[in-house]
This record gives sequence, C-alpha cells and structure tokens, in this order.
Amino acid sequence: MNEAHLDDSPLKQRLRSIIFGTDTPEGKAFDIVLLISIVASILLISLDTIDSFHADYGNFFLIGEWIFTIIFTFEYVLRLYCSQNRLLYARSFFGIVDLLSILPSYLALIFPGANFALAIRVLRLFRVFRVLKLLRFLADGNLLLKAMLQSSRKVFIFFFSVSLIILVLSVVMYVVEGPNNGFSSIPKSMYWTIVTITTVGYGDITPQTPLGQAIAALTMLIGYSIIAIPTGILTAEISQEMVKVRDLRKCSNCGKAGHDNDAQFCNHCGSELESLASLTQP
Amino acid sequence: MNEAHLDDSPLKQRLRSIIFGTDTPEGKAFDIVLLISIVASILLISLDTIDSFHADYGNFFLIGEWIFTIIFTFEYVLRLYCSQNRLLYARSFFGIVDLLSILPSYLALIFPGANFALAIRVLRLFRVFRVLKLLRFLADGNLLLKAMLQSSRKVFIFFFSVSLIILVLSVVMYVVEGPNNGFSSIPKSMYWTIVTITTVGYGDITPQTPLGQAIAALTMLIGYSIIAIPTGILTAEISQEMVKVRDLRKCSNCGKAGHDNDAQFCNHCGSELESLASLTQP
Amino acid sequence: MNEAHLDDSPLKQRLRSIIFGTDTPEGKAFDIVLLISIVASILLISLDTIDSFHADYGNFFLIGEWIFTIIFTFEYVLRLYCSQNRLLYARSFFGIVDLLSILPSYLALIFPGANFALAIRVLRLFRVFRVLKLLRFLADGNLLLKAMLQSSRKVFIFFFSVSLIILVLSVVMYVVEGPNNGFSSIPKSMYWTIVTITTVGYGDITPQTPLGQAIAALTMLIGYSIIAIPTGILTAEISQEMVKVRDLRKCSNCGKAGHDNDAQFCNHCGSELESLASLTQP
Amino acid sequence: MNEAHLDDSPLKQRLRSIIFGTDTPEGKAFDIVLLISIVASILLISLDTIDSFHADYGNFFLIGEWIFTIIFTFEYVLRLYCSQNRLLYARSFFGIVDLLSILPSYLALIFPGANFALAIRVLRLFRVFRVLKLLRFLADGNLLLKAMLQSSRKVFIFFFSVSLIILVLSVVMYVVEGPNNGFSSIPKSMYWTIVTITTVGYGDITPQTPLGQAIAALTMLIGYSIIAIPTGILTAEISQEMVKVRDLRKCSNCGKAGHDNDAQFCNHCGSELESLASLTQP
Repeated sequence: MNEAHLDDSPLKQRLRSIIFGTDTPEGKAFDIVLLISIVASILLISLDTIDSFHADYGNFFLIGEWIFTIIFTFEYVLRLYCSQNRLLYARSFFGIVDLLSILPSYLALIFPGANFALAIRVLRLFRVFRVLKLLRFLADGNLLLKAMLQSSRKVFIFFFSVSLIILVLSVVMYVVEGPNNGFSSIPKSMYWTIVTITTVGYGDITPQTPLGQAIAALTMLIGYSIIAIPTGILTAEISQEMVKVRDLRKCSNCGKAGHDNDAQFCNHCGSELESLASLTQP
Repeated sequence: MNEAHLDDSPLKQRLRSIIFGTDTPEGKAFDIVLLISIVASILLISLDTIDSFHADYGNFFLIGEWIFTIIFTFEYVLRLYCSQNRLLYARSFFGIVDLLSILPSYLALIFPGANFALAIRVLRLFRVFRVLKLLRFLADGNLLLKAMLQSSRKVFIFFFSVSLIILVLSVVMYVVEGPNNGFSSIPKSMYWTIVTITTVGYGDITPQTPLGQAIAALTMLIGYSIIAIPTGILTAEISQEMVKVRDLRKCSNCGKAGHDNDAQFCNHCGSELESLASLTQP
Repeated sequence: MNEAHLDDSPLKQRLRSIIFGTDTPEGKAFDIVLLISIVASILLISLDTIDSFHADYGNFFLIGEWIFTIIFTFEYVLRLYCSQNRLLYARSFFGIVDLLSILPSYLALIFPGANFALAIRVLRLFRVFRVLKLLRFLADGNLLLKAMLQSSRKVFIFFFSVSLIILVLSVVMYVVEGPNNGFSSIPKSMYWTIVTITTVGYGDITPQTPLGQAIAALTMLIGYSIIAIPTGILTAEISQEMVKVRDLRKCSNCGKAGHDNDAQFCNHCGSELESLASLTQP
Repeated sequence: MNEAHLDDSPLKQRLRSIIFGTDTPEGKAFDIVLLISIVASILLISLDTIDSFHADYGNFFLIGEWIFTIIFTFEYVLRLYCSQNRLLYARSFFGIVDLLSILPSYLALIFPGANFALAIRVLRLFRVFRVLKLLRFLADGNLLLKAMLQSSRKVFIFFFSVSLIILVLSVVMYVVEGPNNGFSSIPKSMYWTIVTITTVGYGDITPQTPLGQAIAALTMLIGYSIIAIPTGILTAEISQEMVKVRDLRKCSNCGKAGHDNDAQFCNHCGSELESLASLTQP
C-alpha cells in the first residue's frame, strides 16, 4: 500500500505517506490528531444528550460539532483524492463509515424543520458511529482474533446448546409462574431466563412461587457452570497459538526451536536470532 | 445406517437416503427444510403467547400451526415407514420427541372444550418441545462433550462441595436475619444463597442487619472465587484433548506425530499426511 | 484402619468392617443407609421451617426427627464402641460432629419450656449441621484440593490485593456519594463495593450522582477483569497436576512415561501397564 | 539494601536491620507490629463512620486514633533518620504515603473549627489511605504481576474492543428506549450498558420496550461470552510462566531440566538440586 506509483503526482504520493504511513513522523502525527478528534467528537455528542448540559452549553456543542465535521470532511476528501481506486474506497467499509460520520451534520442543515424532530434526533445520534472510525487503529491480524476464529465452530455448538437450554427453561417457567409475576409471555420468559443464566440478575422479574424459585435456582447453577465452557475453549486455543508462536523461530546456527518471544539469542548455542516481528508480519 | 438392505424396496432405500443422508443434495435439502420448519414453528408458538399478538393474529397463528403439524406428521410417518425396526424407532428418544411434537395439536382438536382450559394451555405449550428435534443436528461425538464427561467426577465433587457450602450458609443466614427480611424459611434462605453465590443477585431478598451483610459479603467472595474451579477443570481437560488430537496423526513416512490440525504435509519430512477427519470418524 | 487387632472380639472386628469398610457389601450398604438418612434428615428440618408446612405436618416432622435421632445415636454408640481409642474418636472432628447432630434433640426434650424459645429454635437449627457428616464421603486426597493448596500463596496475594482495591473504592464512594443514598458508613460502602466488584449487583444500594456512577462503572470493569485471575492461577495448577499424573506411570518394559490416564497398554512397546490407582493410592 | 555502610553509626545500622530486615527476629517483629497497627487503625476509622458507634464510642476512637498517629509518626521519623538519602525517601511513593497517613490528624488539630466541616471530614477519611502502607508487604516481583504485564498489550486490545461495543450498544439503547425509562442521556445509557455487560445487573435502570429487552438480552450474552477472553489470555500467560520456572533448574550432575518446583533431588540421576529460591531471587 505504501509503494509509490510512477504515474502519481508528488503531492499525491506525499499525502498518501501521511495518511496511510504509520512509521513516518507525519503519518504518526496524522494518526494521533485523527484519534483525538474522534474521541473528542464522541465525548461532545454524548455530553450533548444530557439535558442540563444541552441547555447551558448547547451553542458551544454546536460549534464544536461543526469543527469536527469540517475536520472529518477534509479527511474524507483527502482519502478520496489519494485512493488508487476512488470508487473502491467509497464503497469499502471504511469509506462508508467515513461518509456516514459527516453526512448527518449536513442533512440536519438541509432539513432544519421541527416537523422532522425524531428523524433529526436519530440522525444526530448517527454521528456517534464515528466510533467505528477507531477500528482502523486495531491491528487486524492479531493472535486473539485468530484464536476466536479457530474456536468458532466449538463456540457455535456451545451457543446452540445454550439456546436450547434457554428455550426449554423459558417454557417451563412460563407454565410454572403462570401469566402473572412478569412472566406474561414466552418472549418475556426468555428475557428473564437470559437475565438469570448470564448471572446478570436485574430483579425486575423474579419468581414468586416455591416451584418457580427452585427452577430459578437450577437455572442459576446451570449458568454458573456453563460460564466455564467458552473460557475453557478459548484458553486452550490461545495456549496452542502461543506455543506455535514459540516454535516459529528456529536458530539458524543449531536449528533449535521453542525460544521465548522476547529472546534475542539462541539459548542452546548463543547465536543471534531473527526478530519475531520479521517472521509474523510477512 | 446408510447401508441399503437387499430386501428393501427401491422407494424405501431412496427415502432413507433423503432422510438419514447428510452428504447427498436431497439429504441436505431435507435437513434444511426441517431445520427451518422447527425454528419457524417455535417462533410462532412463542409469539402466540403475547396477548396483543394473539388477539390480532390469532387466526394466522392457528393456520401456521396446522401447516407445521402436517409437515411434522408427514416427517413422522416417513421415518416410521423407512425404519429397519419400526418399534425400535417409535420407542427411541427421537421417536417419542417426534410424536410429542404433533400429538398436542390433534389432542386440542379432540378436546376443544373450554372446561379443560388449563390442560389445553399446557398441552399447546408442549408443542414448544419441538425444540428437542433440533438435537438431531448436534454432532454427538464432539470434543466438548468428551471433555465434560472426562471431568464429570471432578465436577460432581465440586457441586457436592458447593451444596455443602450453600446449605451451611443458608442455615447461618436464616438464624442471623431471623424469619423477617424475606429469609422466612431455610428453603427461602437457600434460594437467596444460590442467587448470591452464583453472582446473579436479583435483590428481591437482601440482608438488612450488619452481621447479615457481612456474611452476605463473605458469600459473594466465596462465589467469586469458586467460579474459577469448573473453568479450571474444563480448560485443563480441553487442553489435554487437543494435545491428544494433535498426537493422533503420525506421518507414514518418518513417523513424526504432533502435527497441527490444519496441517496437510509433515513438517519434518514433507510427505503428505492423512486427513484428520478420516482418523477421528471411524 | 481395616487391619484386625488380635485382642479385639470377633463382634468388634465384624462391626468395624461394616462401619469403616467401603469395599465389602455390608460396608457399602451401611454407607448408603447413612447417606440417605443424613440427606432425608436435613430435608425434613428445612421443610419444617416453612410455616405452612410446620402447621400442617408438624407432628409428622417431629416423629421423623426422632427416628433420625435414634439412627444417628445408634451410629454414634457403634462408632464409639468400635474405636481403637475411644477418647481420640470422641475428640476428633467427626466425633464432635456426630455428637452435635444428636445432642440438640435431647436438649430440646430436657428443656421444653417456652421461656427458652429462641435458644430452642437455634438449638433445633443446629441439627442441620448434620450436613457436615457428609464430609466423610468426600475423598480427601483429591487432585482438586491439591491444586488449590498448591496455589494458596498466589490466591492469598490475590485476595490481599482485592481487599486493598475494595477498601480504597469504598472510601472514595463514601466521600463521593455522601452519607446519603445508602452509603451511610464505610462498612456499608464496603458492602456495596463487594456486591459490585463480585458482579452480584443486588441494586439495594446504587450510586445516584454522575461521578458516583462513573466510579461504579470503573468498579464493575475492575471486577470483570480480575475475575480472570483466580481462574488463571487454578487452571494452570490443575494442568500441571494432570501432566504429573500422566508422567507417573512408566512402562516397566521400555521405560516410556506419559501414558493417558485410561491407557492399559504402553503405546510404545505394547506391554501391559500397572493400574493408575495402584500408584496414586499408596 | 541490607549492606551496612562503613560511615554509618552502629545505631543507624542496627535500626536499619530492624526496619528493612525481613529475616532477623527483630525485623520480623517490627513488620508484624506495623501490619497489626495499620489494620487496626483502618478498622477504627471505618467503624467511626457508623453514626451510632461514633455517638457511643467517639472518645475511645479519638484516643485510639492518636495512639496510631504517634506510632506512625515514630515510624516515619525512624525511616527518615535511617535512609541513605533522606530526600529520596521523602519524595518516594512510600515516603509520601507515610507522610499522608499522619498529616490529616495533625491538620485536624490545627484547624478544629466547625466552619471547615466538610474539609475536615474528607481530611479524616484520607487517613484510611494508610491502607497503601500495606503495599510494602506485597512482594513486587511476583509471577502474577509478570503474567499480567506480559499480557498487557492483549488486555489493552480487549478493553479497546469492549469500549467500542459498549459505546455502540449505549447509543442503540438510547435511541430505542427513548429518553424515558432511565435512559435519559448517552452517559446514563453507558452506565446501564456497563452494569449489564459486566453481568452486575443492579436493576435500577431496566429496558421496558420489547425491542429494548431483546437488545438487552444480546448485551448480556455478549458480556457472558467475552468474560472468557481476559481469563483465556491470563491463563495462557501464567501457564507459560510456570513452565519457564520449571525449566529454570538444571541438575548440575546430569544436566536434566524440568524439575517440579518442590523437587529436592534430580528425578533422573538422584543428585541434590539447588533450591529454586536461590535461582529466582538474585
């Protein structure tokens, strides 16, 4: 992505190194400014929803909002200009996120009427999805995600089984507690079962009959036990991934593998080792 | 089960390959239609218990219900017809589940009187146990179940110890909080202890005396600590099972074991490896 | 313990084999009768605390109670008679438990006056500690307990750190939420902090000020994170214990170790292995 | 730190061995007296915040408070006197903690006026941070902390992702549940999301609309699942650290590594092993 194309203007190449580069000083500065802008913008939108803050600092929030909108518009135009293939960027996930994070402000400007009150309110809230811009800063090829994908089949079987248990318990509780006590329908009963089996326990719906309380106790103990299963699956996967990373580096002198991640010299013959980064980031 | 018997008619053999087969296109199509029918049927029954939905769409739900009953009846008759041993199927777990998932609809037709109101209501709810038909789609010989069975003795000792702790704490809390504050009997106190030790915490019964709150705090910390034990047991078992699966494949050329589950070639001599599936599914 | 002493009468030896033996048919029968008696007795006492049950079946409960008291008295006398050293048994943990599980019934008989109402009530509840008799059925030298003791130092450091965090957060919340909103004293505030950090969350005391809610959110996230630590410690210990058990059995023919717990033959040379039980139970 | 400097007076050297020494009898006695004083002092301050206790035993608490203040003042002066570099100690973390744990008592003496009521109250509470003095007793270079630091990057990515999820869910719930039902602003909605995703579940704010309850159920299931991730990370790290410690000791006779932490002799050749402590505490 950092390779300069011969047919690009020097300006475009320079801009690209700023926007996409993460190693150059300008690239880092751009990233940090963007990161701060996104976080500040979200903070501002969130605070604006508090009524007393909106009454007192409404105008200040409006000005701040427009400053961020201009910054993000500028960023969007720059990205569009620098892209090798503009349509591809505009249609990509981040292209759409970048557009959606500036659009609501402009739309609110075009339709300022009070007759669209709810629509406007929802629209303004959409700006908070600027948070998705932060996803750019998450390294995508990390160990964690790999372990989760590796165990996705096991996790799916787990959630399928849990759904079965939830459904059966919901029906039983609906029959036992009758349509009273908040267990007014099976979906309501499912909501209670999920609140209980995940050990959240709001207490807005609680069983009143002795039999209901006994089944509730059973539900809790089931939840308490099966909480162990996804942990067990994931831990085993992460352990395996870690061992694999350990085994990745072979000493070029004596051939021994299994060095610690932070080792710099072979612990068998003392010759220098390749850095781990050069192996995992091809 | 998929082996054709010489004395069976070609129709029977064909039907059997559709119903029991999971690799043929017809078998897959049958499975998918069945899966969708079950899920849709359960959804319909659940929504029907919401009063406002029942009032507005009651007739639509009734028609839908009969469509699914006919589908499942058709499936039941087919399975009965195709079975090598019909009595064995009819008596098997899935045979009974299949029957129970169609019976309530017919019974409700026979006894439509309002004088059996509660019985009818319970009967109609029994239809939701159609969910058990989904169990067919769960591979039974999976790693997860094996790890759980392997550690069942340890888990039993764990739950035995937890029951002891719950009982002792229940009695102590019943004595401390008196018969007031919701702790009106030992079973009620046990309900509170389970709600607390599993970290569910409804808040419908809470200790009011300082001593009661101190014991409650102790109960929570115990629950918080022992939540680790089943996780630890299961994780260790799953890790061991994984290592075993790794060690299952031996290279037929150089004899080295311990290949990754997704490895296709021996990482020692480069010769091709047998697929893992051919080893674990005998 | 099962060795017969020459100076004992044949009756004593016979009784001892019944009471302490777990392999002989009589020993097993004795254990099962005792187990059922204890569980039934506790069930009876618990149900008796429910007012409506006590009113309706009070006399039945009283008769049942005396039957169990006679059974446990008989058991106590037998154990005392069979002991090599009677004083040692009477002073041992189980000796005291056995005595305490029969004493309350007799004391209630001696002091039946209504003027000792509370004392009698507490006394009657003491009977529930018969549950401690169940401890006899728990194998004491198990893997789980060993792993927990092995990691006790780490767990102590963990609870010491958690106590520090709880104390600091309690003081902060007491200062922030003022003496209102249920945070009326530091001990009350500590109760709230424990309810929150263990993710129990009764909701009987909740923060009302924005700053208090922010600190509460932080407390929850801390609790959510550190829940991982005891699990991690214990899992690692159990894994190590399991590996040790695997390495315990060496093939007497080729010397290879690391056999599965359920292996009967050496997977290296095919010769029969010693049973694992004969190694772990010296 | 225990090395005596030639230019120090014998008194200073003697005091230093008492204060900093942990192996000598005097050093141990000093540590124990200090530990008990800190815990007793904190207990006293906490109990003093209970109104009824303050009314009845206020004077007793005041006297106790001054005794502990004098003890800690004496300790502070001793430490200052013994330090190689007094300014360095006074500016260090523990130097400031030691000073702050005695200062509030003297300040309350100087400004006893009722017109600073709140300031005084906060000041008196600051004494509870004496709890930080306990940190001295925590070994700093322990395995647990190392595992946590080792995995800090992974844990950071985890919390970054969780923050993203919390923010998105907060906005969605704010839009769905409207400004009613306690979801009056995005920060309030974030508070609810954290209460739910950490499975605390106070129940002070609960969704009322069916859609809101469905999203709440999803939030709980997410929280229930991702609770596994930090556990998995930490467990894998601790396991690795343990294996490393096992591999630390090599038999000086035959060269075999991988001995149990409590092993005293090589399990390969039988020769005595170095103690583990001498290896990990350089």
